[in-house]
Amino acid sequence: MTDNPAIPPLAISLGDPAGIGPELIALAWSTREELSLPPFVVMGGANVLRAAAKSRGLDLPVEAVEAPQDANTVFASALPVLAEVGDGQFRPGQPSAEGARLSLRSLEMAASLALSGAASGMVTAPVSKSELAAVGFTFPGQTEFVAHASGIEEEDAVMMLAGPSLRAVPLTVHCALSQVSGLLSQDLILRRCRVIHKAMQRDFALPAPHLALAGLNPHAGEKGRMGGEEETIIAPAIAQLQAEGIAATGPHPADTMFAPHKRGTYDVAVAMYHDQALVPLKTLDFDKGVNMTLGLPIIRTSPDHGTAFDIAGGGIAKADSLVEAIRMAALAANNRAMAA
Amino acid sequence: MTDNPAIPPLAISLGDPAGIGPELIALAWSTREELSLPPFVVMGGANVLRAAAKSRGLDLPVEAVEAPQDANTVFASALPVLAEVGDGQFRPGQPSAEGARLSLRSLEMAASLALSGAASGMVTAPVSKSELAAVGFTFPGQTEFVAHASGIEEEDAVMMLAGPSLRAVPLTVHCALSQVSGLLSQDLILRRCRVIHKAMQRDFALPAPHLALAGLNPHAGEKGRMGGEEETIIAPAIAQLQAEGIAATGPHPADTMFAPHKRGTYDVAVAMYHDQALVPLKTLDFDKGVNMTLGLPIIRTSPDHGTAFDIAGGGIAKADSLVEAIRMAALAANNRAMAA
Repeated sequence: MTDNPAIPPLAISLGDPAGIGPELIALAWSTREELSLPPFVVMGGANVLRAAAKSRGLDLPVEAVEAPQDANTVFASALPVLAEVGDGQFRPGQPSAEGARLSLRSLEMAASLALSGAASGMVTAPVSKSELAAVGFTFPGQTEFVAHASGIEEEDAVMMLAGPSLRAVPLTVHCALSQVSGLLSQDLILRRCRVIHKAMQRDFALPAPHLALAGLNPHAGEKGRMGGEEETIIAPAIAQLQAEGIAATGPHPADTMFAPHKRGTYDVAVAMYHDQALVPLKTLDFDKGVNMTLGLPIIRTSPDHGTAFDIAGGGIAKADSLVEAIRMAALAANNRAMAA
Repeated sequence: MTDNPAIPPLAISLGDPAGIGPELIALAWSTREELSLPPFVVMGGANVLRAAAKSRGLDLPVEAVEAPQDANTVFASALPVLAEVGDGQFRPGQPSAEGARLSLRSLEMAASLALSGAASGMVTAPVSKSELAAVGFTFPGQTEFVAHASGIEEEDAVMMLAGPSLRAVPLTVHCALSQVSGLLSQDLILRRCRVIHKAMQRDFALPAPHLALAGLNPHAGEKGRMGGEEETIIAPAIAQLQAEGIAATGPHPADTMFAPHKRGTYDVAVAMYHDQALVPLKTLDFDKGVNMTLGLPIIRTSPDHGTAFDIAGGGIAKADSLVEAIRMAALAANNRAMAA
């Protein structure tokens, strides 16, 4: 995708060393030529990666580098690893406090390199939230950590899920369905949609991105017959966005807006709740979904799956989502570099 | 699909004569050989159908029949129409009280023939609910009318949406999203799932149908962390269904249960709300969705779209959904006949 030597490599955090992250990183590196992947450097875990590669039957040369930029030359012949982050020996499927601490150091270094510009962006392999919490990590997840490290309020760090068929942002995320209506507000919609708009311009090189907002209720409420949030909250927010020059449309009935002939008419779908975004995305692009955090000064993507301790080391986890996360981070890095 | 002479034809109601129903019926008949469609007879509207066919550039011989069974012999060479129901001249896109009354007589006759056994099932073209209400129709829609005509309580007439990729039933339908949690109960789930189970056996010839129930909340609530309905309502209902010998599973996280590798693992998805069922269905099978009413003594299907007054007569409406509705009704009729 890019081997522009002016662009620093991507920093990849190791994820939990007992999860599927390390084997997927090894797999992704092994497809670098076939898939024209951009150079990346892993934050620590050289031995973890060697063992993970072995479990997948891969011949993986690992090369310790001292500076991220060395990765650009090493990448063709070996997987570059930033040795100073640390290493260890861990059993797949058996998370440990030591492993959680390594995953945290790896995450912190990736953010640090992205923030300093030594990496062009960061791609985070999956961590275990409960294992991290047990070693003192105080954030609900990596997204909130990265927002904090970037000096961005959590409200302005917006999770987007994207696959080859669809980009979708849920405005509310991990809450009970019955709480969604109470959490929606014009302010929330405006704040998040402004972030989405800027990110589509900057990271996807779309000068006038089209944001299609879903309704909350069946058939987008049918003029208030089935719920009033469209008329009291969503439509006024769309009018305000339009007044600001943002190409926002809706509220669209959720059941039809993801149909094949509709998906191509907008750049990003803005959903009101978790499953309204995630159901169509995973229905269409299950293996290739990418989680991207919009609104950060840095680029951050991650595969759209967890540590999958149950299949770690089992030789079956697919690297598609990680590969797409690497590609999307590289695309955004290129777009930012071109615009700079 | 079937030309078993022992099976009576399907009765098709005309729908609103100013909508797209008549032109789609004409289109469907014109593909009868190519698609091996079973014989059907239209309830009235011979001139409406002729005009609609002309607008689509179709050469449509229409033949009035006095008894439904005559349709089986007529069908190969002409579209059989039960003349006694009535007729008229109507302008596409311009609904009228007279048109609504014709659509109602057509619907009533289709139900009557299906209930008497003179038709093997009924397929209903789209009507205008507001036009029908204006001429004294007291039901919210055709489904409730058919339930009433069949002597079935509305609670036991269950709407299923089905396409080539998925069958899905929403347990709650046309209500605000914020009301869903309050409407869900173990009783509702049990009552509807028993109906679904029997219908899958009888109409789809599945001896032990697998019903996959969705959770209500993101990730099916994650053990109560995001909403408690899974633990207090859905899981206990599933346990009861299993105790009755019904192959029910769940609650499944909604975002992953419609993914490609999951869809083949169950026979019908049971969703907790409208868009949880309709989003994946229309994302996958937009043009070929069929609405089937489960739990009736008769077979009733309909295309999964409305009158589309805005494109009636415009030559662009697709007949895929009506064709699939005809096929599904015929399949169910065959299955019932084989089991009888």
